[in-house]
Amino acid sequence: MEIPAEEYQNRITKIQEILKERGLDVLITFGSESEPQNLIYLSNYWPAFETASVIIPAYGDPILVVGPETMTFALDYSKIKKIRQVIEHRESSEPNYPGVRLSTFQEIFDEVLNGKPLRRLAFSGLSIVSLPVYEGVKKTVGIGEIIKADDILINLRMRKSENEVILMRKSAEIAMKSFEAVLNNIHTGTEEVEVAGYAVGEMFRNKAENIAYTPYILSGTRTNQAIGRASHRTINRNEPIQFSCGCRYGNYSSSIGRPFCIGKMPDEYKKLVKIGMELQKVVLGTLKAGITASDVFRKYWEQLGSSGYSRFFLYGPCHGTGIMECEHPFLEADSDYVLFDGLAFQVDIFLGDSNYGLRFEDGVVVREEGAEEFTTAYREIIEI
Amino acid sequence: MEIPAEEYQNRITKIQEILKERGLDVLITFGSESEPQNLIYLSNYWPAFETASVIIPAYGDPILVVGPETMTFALDYSKIKKIRQVIEHRESSEPNYPGVRLSTFQEIFDEVLNGKPLRRLAFSGLSIVSLPVYEGVKKTVGIGEIIKADDILINLRMRKSENEVILMRKSAEIAMKSFEAVLNNIHTGTEEVEVAGYAVGEMFRNKAENIAYTPYILSGTRTNQAIGRASHRTINRNEPIQFSCGCRYGNYSSSIGRPFCIGKMPDEYKKLVKIGMELQKVVLGTLKAGITASDVFRKYWEQLGSSGYSRFFLYGPCHGTGIMECEHPFLEADSDYVLFDGLAFQVDIFLGDSNYGLRFEDGVVVREEGAEEFTTAYREIIEI
Repeated sequence: MEIPAEEYQNRITKIQEILKERGLDVLITFGSESEPQNLIYLSNYWPAFETASVIIPAYGDPILVVGPETMTFALDYSKIKKIRQVIEHRESSEPNYPGVRLSTFQEIFDEVLNGKPLRRLAFSGLSIVSLPVYEGVKKTVGIGEIIKADDILINLRMRKSENEVILMRKSAEIAMKSFEAVLNNIHTGTEEVEVAGYAVGEMFRNKAENIAYTPYILSGTRTNQAIGRASHRTINRNEPIQFSCGCRYGNYSSSIGRPFCIGKMPDEYKKLVKIGMELQKVVLGTLKAGITASDVFRKYWEQLGSSGYSRFFLYGPCHGTGIMECEHPFLEADSDYVLFDGLAFQVDIFLGDSNYGLRFEDGVVVREEGAEEFTTAYREIIEI
Repeated sequence: MEIPAEEYQNRITKIQEILKERGLDVLITFGSESEPQNLIYLSNYWPAFETASVIIPAYGDPILVVGPETMTFALDYSKIKKIRQVIEHRESSEPNYPGVRLSTFQEIFDEVLNGKPLRRLAFSGLSIVSLPVYEGVKKTVGIGEIIKADDILINLRMRKSENEVILMRKSAEIAMKSFEAVLNNIHTGTEEVEVAGYAVGEMFRNKAENIAYTPYILSGTRTNQAIGRASHRTINRNEPIQFSCGCRYGNYSSSIGRPFCIGKMPDEYKKLVKIGMELQKVVLGTLKAGITASDVFRKYWEQLGSSGYSRFFLYGPCHGTGIMECEHPFLEADSDYVLFDGLAFQVDIFLGDSNYGLRFEDGVVVREEGAEEFTTAYREIIEI
């Protein structure tokens, strides 16, 4: 199962309608190995080593722009059939490729605009663009204007189609199987990285295309890391473990998080786990189309305050998810948007102080009647 | 085994000497999840989701700058003890973190320079910096000058220490074990991604910290991709397979590449494999401290020409390697540098046309007496 070709085409068409409405000539968006979201969304192409961009004119056909080494790779994946190559998308080791004929951004904009002048260019994804690509584009635009247009792709990507939800659910189910593989294989005396391997092996066994991020197998005091990575630390009995993992399947990322223990969970950690579970329940019970995001935060914050653990707070209880495990929108104290049907969240309850921490995380899609959950297993005290 | 703390300190000290020589006040370098090389080299910290930078003054202590969510993560890994947080390094989903107190680049530069004015800032790694970080720094520099100083870190990183070579060799050995796991487990009817899982599972089992890149399990006509990724294609009998994989161990990346076949290798592919093996042999026999890089290329190019397969050429036969699987320098027709003891290469023979392709790849370190090879197994026609 994959996103059908016409859904890719619809995405392009919607962007072209917005460009026309706003009087913009063309939109460009950039992506890399670790930030491929807009490229995947528009073309199904996800670069490695090199970077890439997609250029969409208000009228006519889009172009995928890649680096010097990836024409065959891009041709195999891209739903956008016109592909060009520029030096600005080369890998960071900066080969020269002497004698190789590449395009320039000028030539590509001329082609995409049929030679018409480029007056107003929309840039979507300015927070991740590399400097060489930004400067290459800027030079080409000349006296024209570059308009920050992150919102165009963010808004489109935020509302998930039924096909997207199917893939996200499948991706989440694989992540849950990976957690089960960890529970079935973990033992004391192994390094965290070995445990990560149980999870990652299970992902590919279930036909995931990749990890969504390097798994967090964080043991002991390392559980307090909101973002982390399995290390060479050896796992002991009766100490907390923070497990978080996700894969990418059909281009869509997942994540699940659970705290657990080999042996007996320390009492004070067990108390924190119960607070985390209760918080997750409160947030899941609140999510619903029509609710204002900050109201969800408020309920979370009140619950956390009544538990006496406010000092364990680092960030709000939900963030958007889709192609990336973490994408717009975050749900925070100042989030004034209204939830709508098709908005997908990771309900991500992280609590940590200097000694220990935990994460309860599951993906959901917001519906009129409430949160439709992708994974629900193991919301309990896990002692193996 | 890991790089000792004093080796990190020496790297900083060497940079400070160069800054003083060149009359530069401070150096900054940037890194992300997929381009962490300079951060790892200087601090042992490799970000996930967020980005980071390292700021080194000509005099005094360096600072690691991370995003809002990664203080505990960075504290656990970083050899640089002063760590600050700025909004410009937040993740691409752009949370606001209302109420969280962060630093500004201005405050950090004031701290690092003890309040002295910032007149000349060296930027190392301009090809990968994100626009928000570049603009945040630029604003801070004000009327001061930003000087492109990619060469400082490139040159330091290019000459490998004995500790680095030990880790690179170990990383390469794990990659070779991963290839063996694939040979032992692969069968027809599985998807390429499942085969990638045999390799990746084996990496973590051998305590790698991560993949160096998503494995290339490219079957049939997909073998012609110089850069690629395992897909959902089902593998058949008697068709070419391009295998490339690498891991990161002790922060150092590896890669090995081999063509093989389940069943009988098609005759014309077998011919290409023999040409690839011969080319690899020629290049390996040429590498040696004191040789000019373009002379190595010339020998490769002559051999390729005499085989009649010049049209299968895409890029030169070697590239630098170390923390990244692919780093400076590339070895190309126009490479005028002289090889030296401690320069590490991937000898990377890729040949491809529109129908099929292959890669023979192994890591080496250049010595006075020739190439010291990390992996040598399976340089043969592999039919399983």
